[in-house]
Amino acid sequence: MGRTSDAKNKILSAAHTLFEQRGYSALGVAEICKAAGVPKGSFYYFFDSKETLALAVIDEHWATEQRGWERILRSDADPLERLRQLFEATEATQRAAQDNCGTVVGCMLGNLSLEMSNQADAVRGRLQEIFEAQVELVEVVIIAARERGEVTVADTHDAAQSMVAQLEGQVLFAKLYNNPSRLNRLWPSCLALLGVSKSQVPVKA
Amino acid sequence: MGRTSDAKNKILSAAHTLFEQRGYSALGVAEICKAAGVPKGSFYYFFDSKETLALAVIDEHWATEQRGWERILRSDADPLERLRQLFEATEATQRAAQDNCGTVVGCMLGNLSLEMSNQADAVRGRLQEIFEAQVELVEVVIIAARERGEVTVADTHDAAQSMVAQLEGQVLFAKLYNNPSRLNRLWPSCLALLGVSKSQVPVKA
Repeated sequence: MGRTSDAKNKILSAAHTLFEQRGYSALGVAEICKAAGVPKGSFYYFFDSKETLALAVIDEHWATEQRGWERILRSDADPLERLRQLFEATEATQRAAQDNCGTVVGCMLGNLSLEMSNQADAVRGRLQEIFEAQVELVEVVIIAARERGEVTVADTHDAAQSMVAQLEGQVLFAKLYNNPSRLNRLWPSCLALLGVSKSQVPVKA
Repeated sequence: MGRTSDAKNKILSAAHTLFEQRGYSALGVAEICKAAGVPKGSFYYFFDSKETLALAVIDEHWATEQRGWERILRSDADPLERLRQLFEATEATQRAAQDNCGTVVGCMLGNLSLEMSNQADAVRGRLQEIFEAQVELVEVVIIAARERGEVTVADTHDAAQSMVAQLEGQVLFAKLYNNPSRLNRLWPSCLALLGVSKSQVPVKA
Protein backbone atom coordinates (compact mmCIF):
# COMPACT_ATOMS: atom_id res chain seq x y z
CA MET A 1 0.00 0.00 0.00
CA GLY A 2 1.46 3.35 -1.01
CA ARG A 3 1.40 5.89 1.77
CA THR A 4 2.08 9.05 -0.13
CA SER A 5 1.68 12.60 1.00
CA ASP A 6 -1.29 12.57 -1.34
CA ALA A 7 -3.14 10.34 1.13
CA LYS A 8 -2.22 12.72 3.95
CA ASN A 9 -3.56 15.67 1.98
CA LYS A 10 -6.76 13.79 1.21
CA ILE A 11 -7.28 13.12 4.93
CA LEU A 12 -6.55 16.75 5.86
CA SER A 13 -8.89 18.06 3.18
CA ALA A 14 -11.76 15.71 4.06
CA ALA A 15 -11.35 16.39 7.78
CA HIS A 16 -11.34 20.15 7.19
CA THR A 17 -14.63 19.98 5.33
CA LEU A 18 -16.22 17.63 7.86
CA PHE A 19 -15.02 19.61 10.92
CA GLU A 20 -16.44 22.81 9.39
CA GLN A 21 -19.77 21.21 8.62
CA ARG A 22 -20.30 18.93 11.60
CA GLY A 23 -17.75 19.74 14.29
CA TYR A 24 -15.25 17.43 15.93
CA SER A 25 -17.10 15.13 18.32
CA ALA A 26 -19.66 13.96 15.79
CA LEU A 27 -16.95 12.44 13.59
CA GLY A 28 -15.09 9.17 13.82
CA VAL A 29 -11.80 8.26 12.17
CA ALA A 30 -13.56 5.67 9.99
CA GLU A 31 -15.91 8.28 8.56
CA ILE A 32 -13.06 10.69 7.87
CA CYS A 33 -11.12 7.95 6.05
CA LYS A 34 -14.19 7.01 4.03
CA ALA A 35 -14.71 10.62 2.94
CA ALA A 36 -11.01 10.91 2.10
CA GLY A 37 -11.03 7.62 0.20
CA VAL A 38 -8.04 6.22 2.10
CA PRO A 39 -7.74 3.07 4.22
CA LYS A 40 -7.76 3.42 8.01
CA GLY A 41 -4.18 2.12 8.15
CA SER A 42 -3.04 5.19 6.25
CA PHE A 43 -4.68 7.41 8.83
CA TYR A 44 -2.62 5.98 11.70
CA TYR A 45 0.52 6.11 9.57
CA PHE A 46 0.17 9.91 9.43
CA PHE A 47 -1.74 10.78 12.64
CA ASP A 48 -1.58 9.39 16.18
CA SER A 49 -5.20 10.23 16.88
CA LYS A 50 -8.19 12.31 15.85
CA GLU A 51 -6.86 15.06 18.14
CA THR A 52 -3.50 15.11 16.30
CA LEU A 53 -5.44 15.40 13.05
CA ALA A 54 -7.50 18.27 14.51
CA LEU A 55 -4.30 20.15 15.37
CA ALA A 56 -2.99 19.67 11.82
CA VAL A 57 -6.30 20.85 10.33
CA ILE A 58 -6.33 23.89 12.62
CA ASP A 59 -2.73 24.77 11.65
CA GLU A 60 -3.45 24.44 7.95
CA HIS A 61 -6.67 26.46 8.24
CA TRP A 62 -4.96 29.28 10.12
CA ALA A 63 -1.93 29.28 7.77
CA THR A 64 -4.28 30.07 4.88
CA GLU A 65 -6.40 32.52 6.85
CA GLN A 66 -3.29 34.22 8.25
CA ARG A 67 -1.98 34.89 4.74
CA GLY A 68 -5.31 36.55 3.93
CA TRP A 69 -5.32 38.63 7.13
CA GLU A 70 -1.68 39.71 6.60
CA ARG A 71 -2.26 40.62 2.95
CA ILE A 72 -5.12 42.89 3.98
CA LEU A 73 -3.90 44.25 7.31
CA ARG A 74 -0.32 44.90 6.17
CA SER A 75 -1.20 46.55 2.87
CA ASP A 76 -0.40 50.20 2.22
CA ALA A 77 -4.06 51.23 2.33
CA ASP A 78 -5.13 53.62 5.11
CA PRO A 79 -5.44 51.79 8.46
CA LEU A 80 -9.22 52.05 8.85
CA GLU A 81 -9.68 51.02 5.22
CA ARG A 82 -7.65 47.87 5.95
CA LEU A 83 -10.01 46.97 8.80
CA ARG A 84 -13.02 47.57 6.55
CA GLN A 85 -11.50 45.23 3.95
CA LEU A 86 -10.95 42.53 6.60
CA PHE A 87 -14.66 42.53 7.46
CA GLU A 88 -15.62 42.60 3.78
CA ALA A 89 -13.37 39.56 3.18
CA THR A 90 -14.89 37.78 6.19
CA GLU A 91 -18.39 38.28 4.80
CA ALA A 92 -17.26 37.15 1.33
CA THR A 93 -15.75 33.96 2.79
CA GLN A 94 -18.97 33.06 4.61
CA ARG A 95 -21.05 33.87 1.53
CA ALA A 96 -18.84 31.62 -0.62
CA ALA A 97 -19.22 28.78 1.91
CA GLN A 98 -22.98 29.23 1.83
CA ASP A 99 -22.98 29.15 -1.99
CA ASN A 100 -20.85 25.98 -1.97
CA CYS A 101 -22.48 23.89 0.73
CA GLY A 102 -25.83 25.57 1.43
CA THR A 103 -25.03 26.87 4.90
CA VAL A 104 -22.83 29.45 6.54
CA VAL A 105 -20.13 27.34 8.20
CA GLY A 106 -18.96 30.00 10.61
CA CYS A 107 -15.41 30.28 11.89
CA MET A 108 -13.89 26.82 12.35
CA LEU A 109 -11.56 28.21 15.01
CA GLY A 110 -14.48 29.67 16.97
CA ASN A 111 -16.53 26.49 16.50
CA LEU A 112 -13.69 24.35 17.86
CA SER A 113 -13.01 26.82 20.69
CA LEU A 114 -16.49 26.26 22.04
CA GLU A 115 -16.61 22.55 21.29
CA MET A 116 -13.14 21.42 22.34
CA SER A 117 -11.39 23.89 24.60
CA ASN A 118 -12.62 22.24 27.81
CA GLN A 119 -11.70 18.78 26.57
CA ALA A 120 -8.36 18.95 24.79
CA ASP A 121 -5.59 21.05 26.31
CA ALA A 122 -3.37 20.90 23.22
CA VAL A 123 -6.20 22.22 21.02
CA ARG A 124 -7.07 24.91 23.57
CA GLY A 125 -3.42 26.07 23.62
CA ARG A 126 -3.16 26.19 19.82
CA LEU A 127 -6.41 28.12 19.46
CA GLN A 128 -5.29 30.60 22.12
CA GLU A 129 -2.08 31.24 20.16
CA ILE A 130 -4.02 31.78 16.95
CA PHE A 131 -6.49 34.25 18.46
CA GLU A 132 -3.58 36.10 20.08
CA ALA A 133 -1.98 36.37 16.63
CA GLN A 134 -5.27 37.76 15.25
CA VAL A 135 -5.47 40.34 18.03
CA GLU A 136 -1.84 41.38 17.39
CA LEU A 137 -2.45 41.80 13.65
CA VAL A 138 -5.48 43.99 14.36
CA GLU A 139 -3.75 45.95 17.14
CA VAL A 140 -0.91 47.05 14.82
CA VAL A 141 -3.50 48.62 12.52
CA ILE A 142 -5.31 50.33 15.40
CA ILE A 143 -1.99 51.78 16.59
CA ALA A 144 -1.36 53.11 13.08
CA ALA A 145 -4.85 54.67 12.99
CA ARG A 146 -4.29 56.23 16.42
CA GLU A 147 -0.99 57.74 15.30
CA ARG A 148 -2.93 59.46 12.51
CA GLY A 149 -5.42 60.77 15.07
CA GLU A 150 -8.25 58.76 13.53
CA VAL A 151 -9.24 56.67 16.56
CA THR A 152 -9.58 57.66 20.20
CA VAL A 153 -9.16 54.38 22.13
CA ALA A 154 -6.97 54.47 25.23
CA ASP A 155 -5.94 50.80 25.21
CA THR A 156 -5.23 49.47 21.72
CA HIS A 157 -4.87 45.85 22.92
CA ASP A 158 -8.29 45.87 24.61
CA ALA A 159 -9.77 47.48 21.51
CA ALA A 160 -8.27 44.80 19.25
CA GLN A 161 -9.61 42.03 21.51
CA SER A 162 -13.08 43.60 21.48
CA MET A 163 -12.97 43.75 17.69
CA VAL A 164 -12.01 40.08 17.34
CA ALA A 165 -14.71 39.19 19.90
CA GLN A 166 -17.24 41.22 17.89
CA LEU A 167 -16.17 39.35 14.77
CA GLU A 168 -16.60 35.94 16.44
CA GLY A 169 -19.96 36.95 17.92
CA GLN A 170 -21.33 38.20 14.60
CA VAL A 171 -20.02 35.12 12.75
CA LEU A 172 -21.89 33.01 15.32
CA PHE A 173 -25.11 34.84 14.40
CA ALA A 174 -24.35 34.62 10.67
CA LYS A 175 -24.15 30.84 11.17
CA LEU A 176 -27.21 30.59 13.44
CA TYR A 177 -29.36 32.61 11.02
CA ASN A 178 -27.57 31.16 7.95
CA ASN A 179 -27.22 34.73 6.77
CA PRO A 180 -23.83 36.19 5.76
CA SER A 181 -25.39 39.68 5.62
CA ARG A 182 -25.26 39.73 9.41
CA LEU A 183 -21.57 40.50 8.94
CA ASN A 184 -22.21 43.88 7.35
CA ARG A 185 -22.68 45.15 10.91
CA LEU A 186 -19.02 44.51 11.68
CA TRP A 187 -17.79 47.73 10.11
CA PRO A 188 -20.09 50.18 11.98
CA SER A 189 -19.48 48.22 15.21
CA CYS A 190 -15.74 48.45 14.63
CA LEU A 191 -15.93 52.22 14.17
CA ALA A 192 -17.96 52.54 17.37
CA LEU A 193 -15.53 50.33 19.34
CA LEU A 194 -12.66 52.51 18.10
CA GLY A 195 -14.44 55.74 18.96
CA VAL A 196 -14.39 57.00 15.37
CA SER A 197 -16.77 59.88 14.76
CA LYS A 198 -18.85 59.65 11.57
CA SER A 199 -17.09 62.64 10.00
CA GLN A 200 -13.81 60.71 10.19
CA VAL A 201 -15.04 57.57 8.44
CA PRO A 202 -12.96 56.97 5.32
CA VAL A 203 -14.87 56.88 2.07
CA LYS A 204 -14.51 53.63 0.16
CA ALA A 205 -12.04 54.06 -2.70
CA MET B 1 -41.11 0.56 36.91
CA GLY B 2 -42.28 3.97 38.15
CA ARG B 3 -41.88 6.70 35.55
CA THR B 4 -42.29 9.76 37.69
CA SER B 5 -41.56 13.34 36.78
CA ASP B 6 -38.60 12.88 39.13
CA ALA B 7 -36.95 10.65 36.49
CA LYS B 8 -37.66 13.29 33.85
CA ASN B 9 -36.06 15.97 36.01
CA LYS B 10 -33.05 13.76 36.64
CA ILE B 11 -32.57 13.30 32.88
CA LEU B 12 -32.97 17.05 32.20
CA SER B 13 -30.54 17.96 34.95
CA ALA B 14 -27.89 15.41 33.91
CA ALA B 15 -28.22 16.38 30.24
CA HIS B 16 -27.91 20.08 31.07
CA THR B 17 -24.64 19.50 32.93
CA LEU B 18 -23.26 17.18 30.24
CA PHE B 19 -24.27 19.47 27.32
CA GLU B 20 -22.57 22.42 29.06
CA GLN B 21 -19.40 20.48 29.71
CA ARG B 22 -19.07 18.37 26.58
CA GLY B 23 -21.53 19.59 23.97
CA TYR B 24 -24.22 17.62 22.19
CA SER B 25 -22.57 15.33 19.63
CA ALA B 26 -20.13 13.76 22.07
CA LEU B 27 -22.97 12.35 24.18
CA GLY B 28 -25.10 9.27 23.75
CA VAL B 29 -28.47 8.56 25.33
CA ALA B 30 -26.94 5.68 27.32
CA GLU B 31 -24.39 7.97 28.94
CA ILE B 32 -27.03 10.59 29.79
CA CYS B 33 -29.21 7.90 31.42
CA LYS B 34 -26.25 6.53 33.39
CA ALA B 35 -25.40 10.03 34.69
CA ALA B 36 -29.07 10.59 35.55
CA GLY B 37 -29.36 7.18 37.24
CA VAL B 38 -32.44 6.20 35.25
CA PRO B 39 -33.02 3.21 32.93
CA LYS B 40 -32.95 3.82 29.18
CA GLY B 41 -36.63 2.84 28.93
CA SER B 42 -37.49 5.88 31.04
CA PHE B 43 -35.67 8.13 28.61
CA TYR B 44 -37.83 7.09 25.68
CA TYR B 45 -40.96 7.36 27.81
CA PHE B 46 -40.27 11.09 28.19
CA PHE B 47 -38.29 11.98 25.05
CA ASP B 48 -38.54 10.86 21.43
CA SER B 49 -34.86 11.42 20.76
CA LYS B 50 -31.70 13.15 21.93
CA GLU B 51 -32.79 16.16 19.85
CA THR B 52 -36.12 16.38 21.68
CA LEU B 53 -34.18 16.27 24.93
CA ALA B 54 -31.87 19.05 23.67
CA LEU B 55 -34.89 21.26 22.94
CA ALA B 56 -36.24 20.65 26.45
CA VAL B 57 -32.84 21.43 28.02
CA ILE B 58 -32.55 24.61 25.93
CA ASP B 59 -36.05 25.74 26.97
CA GLU B 60 -35.36 25.09 30.63
CA HIS B 61 -31.98 26.84 30.46
CA TRP B 62 -33.45 29.92 28.78
CA ALA B 63 -36.46 30.03 31.14
CA THR B 64 -34.05 30.42 34.06
CA GLU B 65 -31.72 32.81 32.26
CA GLN B 66 -34.65 34.87 30.97
CA ARG B 67 -35.92 35.40 34.53
CA GLY B 68 -32.45 36.72 35.44
CA TRP B 69 -32.25 39.01 32.38
CA GLU B 70 -35.78 40.37 32.99
CA ARG B 71 -35.13 40.96 36.69
CA ILE B 72 -32.07 43.05 35.81
CA LEU B 73 -33.16 44.73 32.57
CA ARG B 74 -36.69 45.61 33.76
CA SER B 75 -35.66 46.95 37.16
CA ASP B 76 -36.13 50.61 38.10
CA ALA B 77 -32.38 51.32 37.99
CA ASP B 78 -31.09 53.77 35.37
CA PRO B 79 -30.95 52.15 31.89
CA LEU B 80 -27.15 52.10 31.51
CA GLU B 81 -26.79 50.80 35.07
CA ARG B 82 -29.12 47.90 34.15
CA LEU B 83 -26.83 46.97 31.24
CA ARG B 84 -23.79 47.16 33.52
CA GLN B 85 -25.52 44.81 35.95
CA LEU B 86 -26.29 42.34 33.14
CA PHE B 87 -22.59 42.06 32.27
CA GLU B 88 -21.66 41.81 35.95
CA ALA B 89 -24.15 38.95 36.35
CA THR B 90 -22.79 37.23 33.22
CA GLU B 91 -19.27 37.33 34.64
CA ALA B 92 -20.51 36.07 38.04
CA THR B 93 -22.30 33.13 36.38
CA GLN B 94 -19.16 32.07 34.49
CA ARG B 95 -17.03 32.51 37.61
CA ALA B 96 -19.43 30.32 39.63
CA ALA B 97 -19.29 27.62 36.92
CA GLN B 98 -15.50 27.73 37.01
CA ASP B 99 -15.54 27.41 40.82
CA ASN B 100 -17.93 24.45 40.61
CA CYS B 101 -16.47 22.41 37.77
CA GLY B 102 -13.00 23.82 37.17
CA THR B 103 -13.67 25.41 33.80
CA VAL B 104 -15.62 28.29 32.33
CA VAL B 105 -18.50 26.52 30.55
CA GLY B 106 -19.42 29.44 28.31
CA CYS B 107 -22.92 30.10 27.05
CA MET B 108 -24.74 26.84 26.38
CA LEU B 109 -26.93 28.60 23.81
CA GLY B 110 -23.88 29.92 21.95
CA ASN B 111 -22.14 26.55 22.20
CA LEU B 112 -25.15 24.76 20.72
CA SER B 113 -25.60 27.46 18.05
CA LEU B 114 -22.17 26.69 16.64
CA GLU B 115 -22.39 22.93 17.15
CA MET B 116 -25.95 22.20 16.06
CA SER B 117 -27.46 24.96 13.96
CA ASN B 118 -26.36 23.43 10.66
CA GLN B 119 -27.59 19.99 11.67
CA ALA B 120 -30.91 20.32 13.46
CA ASP B 121 -33.48 22.76 12.10
CA ALA B 122 -35.72 22.59 15.18
CA VAL B 123 -32.78 23.50 17.43
CA ARG B 124 -31.68 26.27 15.07
CA GLY B 125 -35.19 27.75 15.11
CA ARG B 126 -35.46 27.63 18.89
CA LEU B 127 -32.06 29.25 19.39
CA GLN B 128 -32.95 32.00 16.88
CA GLU B 129 -36.10 32.78 18.91
CA ILE B 130 -34.13 32.94 22.14
CA PHE B 131 -31.45 35.27 20.78
CA GLU B 132 -34.17 37.48 19.30
CA ALA B 133 -35.74 37.66 22.76
CA GLN B 134 -32.35 38.65 24.22
CA VAL B 135 -31.93 41.39 21.61
CA GLU B 136 -35.44 42.70 22.33
CA LEU B 137 -34.81 42.81 26.08
CA VAL B 138 -31.60 44.78 25.51
CA GLU B 139 -33.13 47.07 22.89
CA VAL B 140 -35.88 48.26 25.27
CA VAL B 141 -33.15 49.43 27.67
CA ILE B 142 -31.20 51.16 24.89
CA ILE B 143 -34.37 52.99 23.81
CA ALA B 144 -34.89 54.12 27.41
CA ALA B 145 -31.29 55.37 27.57
CA ARG B 146 -31.70 57.20 24.27
CA GLU B 147 -34.87 58.91 25.50
CA ARG B 148 -32.78 60.27 28.39
CA GLY B 149 -30.17 61.51 25.90
CA GLU B 150 -27.53 59.16 27.30
CA VAL B 151 -26.72 57.21 24.12
CA THR B 152 -26.29 58.40 20.55
CA VAL B 153 -26.99 55.31 18.42
CA ALA B 154 -29.17 55.79 15.35
CA ASP B 155 -30.50 52.21 15.13
CA THR B 156 -31.33 50.72 18.52
CA HIS B 157 -32.00 47.24 17.10
CA ASP B 158 -28.60 47.06 15.40
CA ALA B 159 -26.98 48.33 18.61
CA ALA B 160 -28.73 45.67 20.68
CA GLN B 161 -27.63 42.94 18.23
CA SER B 162 -24.04 44.17 18.36
CA MET B 163 -24.15 44.09 22.15
CA VAL B 164 -25.43 40.51 22.26
CA ALA B 165 -22.81 39.55 19.64
CA GLN B 166 -20.11 41.21 21.77
CA LEU B 167 -21.36 39.25 24.77
CA GLU B 168 -21.23 35.93 22.88
CA GLY B 169 -17.77 36.74 21.47
CA GLN B 170 -16.31 37.63 24.85
CA VAL B 171 -17.90 34.57 26.50
CA LEU B 172 -16.21 32.47 23.78
CA PHE B 173 -12.85 33.94 24.81
CA ALA B 174 -13.63 33.54 28.54
CA LYS B 175 -14.16 29.84 27.79
CA LEU B 176 -11.13 29.48 25.49
CA TYR B 177 -8.82 31.14 28.04
CA ASN B 178 -10.74 29.65 31.01
CA ASN B 179 -10.77 33.15 32.43
CA PRO B 180 -14.03 34.84 33.53
CA SER B 181 -12.17 38.16 33.91
CA ARG B 182 -12.28 38.47 30.13
CA LEU B 183 -15.89 39.53 30.65
CA ASN B 184 -14.96 42.74 32.47
CA ARG B 185 -14.37 44.21 29.00
CA LEU B 186 -18.07 43.92 28.19
CA TRP B 187 -18.99 47.14 29.97
CA PRO B 188 -16.49 49.48 28.25
CA SER B 189 -17.26 47.80 24.89
CA CYS B 190 -20.98 48.34 25.48
CA LEU B 191 -20.43 52.03 26.20
CA ALA B 192 -18.38 52.37 23.01
CA LEU B 193 -21.00 50.53 20.93
CA LEU B 194 -23.67 52.86 22.31
CA GLY B 195 -21.58 55.97 21.65
CA VAL B 196 -21.55 56.99 25.32
CA SER B 197 -18.89 59.57 26.11
CA LYS B 198 -16.85 58.94 29.25
CA SER B 199 -18.32 61.97 31.03
CA GLN B 200 -21.77 60.40 30.74
CA VAL B 201 -20.84 57.05 32.30
CA PRO B 202 -22.98 56.46 35.37
CA VAL B 203 -21.10 55.96 38.62
CA LYS B 204 -21.78 52.63 40.30
CA ALA B 205 -24.20 53.12 43.18
